[in-house]
Amino acid sequence: MSELDWIAVDWGTSSLRAWGIDREGTVLWEERSDRGMGGLAPDEFEPAFLTLVGDHLGPGPIEAIACGMVGARQGWVEAGYRAVPCHPLDPEMTRAPTKDPRLQVRIIGGLSQASPADVMRGEETQIAGFLATSPRFDGVICLPGTHTKWVHVSAGEVVSFQTCMTGDLFAAIAGHTVLRHSVQTEDWDDAAFAEAVDDAVSRPEKLAARLFSLRAEGLLSGLAPGAARARLSGALVGAELAATRPYWLGQPIAIIGAGGISKLYARALESLGNTPSRAAGDAMVLKGLAAARALSQGQSA
Amino acid sequence: MSELDWIAVDWGTSSLRAWGIDREGTVLWEERSDRGMGGLAPDEFEPAFLTLVGDHLGPGPIEAIACGMVGARQGWVEAGYRAVPCHPLDPEMTRAPTKDPRLQVRIIGGLSQASPADVMRGEETQIAGFLATSPRFDGVICLPGTHTKWVHVSAGEVVSFQTCMTGDLFAAIAGHTVLRHSVQTEDWDDAAFAEAVDDAVSRPEKLAARLFSLRAEGLLSGLAPGAARARLSGALVGAELAATRPYWLGQPIAIIGAGGISKLYARALESLGNTPSRAAGDAMVLKGLAAARALSQGQSA
Repeated sequence: MSELDWIAVDWGTSSLRAWGIDREGTVLWEERSDRGMGGLAPDEFEPAFLTLVGDHLGPGPIEAIACGMVGARQGWVEAGYRAVPCHPLDPEMTRAPTKDPRLQVRIIGGLSQASPADVMRGEETQIAGFLATSPRFDGVICLPGTHTKWVHVSAGEVVSFQTCMTGDLFAAIAGHTVLRHSVQTEDWDDAAFAEAVDDAVSRPEKLAARLFSLRAEGLLSGLAPGAARARLSGALVGAELAATRPYWLGQPIAIIGAGGISKLYARALESLGNTPSRAAGDAMVLKGLAAARALSQGQSA
Repeated sequence: MSELDWIAVDWGTSSLRAWGIDREGTVLWEERSDRGMGGLAPDEFEPAFLTLVGDHLGPGPIEAIACGMVGARQGWVEAGYRAVPCHPLDPEMTRAPTKDPRLQVRIIGGLSQASPADVMRGEETQIAGFLATSPRFDGVICLPGTHTKWVHVSAGEVVSFQTCMTGDLFAAIAGHTVLRHSVQTEDWDDAAFAEAVDDAVSRPEKLAARLFSLRAEGLLSGLAPGAARARLSGALVGAELAATRPYWLGQPIAIIGAGGISKLYARALESLGNTPSRAAGDAMVLKGLAAARALSQGQSA
């Protein structure tokens, strides 16, 4: 069996994943835990990490490279933001304090933009992974999620970006407003989503007037929860596409993310005449972490 | 001391108010409780009401007239919606089932609109109260709150209306998204509110791109929580004003509501060149309940 060379770590707010990698870049093992950064005090990161990967460690020091909210101010150690335009990865990274001599941990910093003010943390690594596979990509990368990022990439650098908190808004509205009575279902209506996207993009000024009608139609004419949920999602994704139009109009777009949400954004963009390519979020994180390690060792990714 | 003639009741989702009224229309007493419709099963309404007003009842039957969510499907008894255009008040009302012979309770129905689908319940009584004092008003009534109503009134009837769930959205976003870290304060920045309203009305398509910047500016340049909170409110009120522009543009506007929120809407409308009049929500409820009683007795309000 081949020997562990380094550990790739994706440590977000609510989850932690680690992959053991050998000299050839092959994944030897993968471990997951729900001990996300959101639930840990600074001195709890090292024990949490050792609980997850300790069994895989030998006597000698092993390097781990981590991305995500683990580098936030409330994380293991703050890995600062670098201002765009810049390469997505920092060759230096930030060393996290460790007591166990078997570990050396470095954390990838996030990116910031002064005006309009914006930040990202974690997505820069997926972007680097994507650029490792498509080094000549010039266009816009969309990373859909709780806080969707729209990223203009050119000549291997992040030029500018825009965050829309669409997933966060959807969860808050579906869970904590009167619409919770109308959209609680796993059902989904594709046609209702498409219509809502189209309506939101063509008349974005009407957003505030659209939402309560989901409740009213439920009361007056029995609107199906699956249609209401899809219309809420379509209204918010459509509002996002209206707001980010200067980013994506006439540009090649690559969507990086999990299957379901990527498909939704792809479908919405297709209805507006753009045909994005797609890449899996997991795979891009791993490639980005490998690119960070190669960069720090002075190799090309 | 003059004798109790009837009881006026405003029974919403989270609170219950009752006023004892004599033959001359004078308020003899007022009682309040937090036993809103949201926390009561249908058979708990009568006991809750008796707990609140029982000490004021004599042996004979007293009529109570109630408005608000007490008439919803999950309330004491469903008082159906009447379709607009129509007079704000139903002369019939709906009798609530009671066991205590000292009580006779009737509930005012809500209003509905088929397209765009919309409903109101409670506001129709405030509108009737306002029309009792300004019977020739022809224009738009704005009732700001959790679910703000914009109501076109002409010739004493409600012609059409539009609900914007701006207060509900503000609470969900301020309490349950990443912005909760940025807006938790009692502070308020008037200038930031005004700028955000102006920005939202002039470029409504940008709404989805504006919200996360409140978080990013907090992280990058220490945006004050009072400014962030006022900007969030301004962005949402501005989005509402953009969506409802066909309602209010060039129309006389009357705002009915509590002082703080009415002032906010008045200021936003003034910055857009409209000078609304204002009426207190409490007073209008009471006048509307009196109008409902008069109407049911065949008197003019």
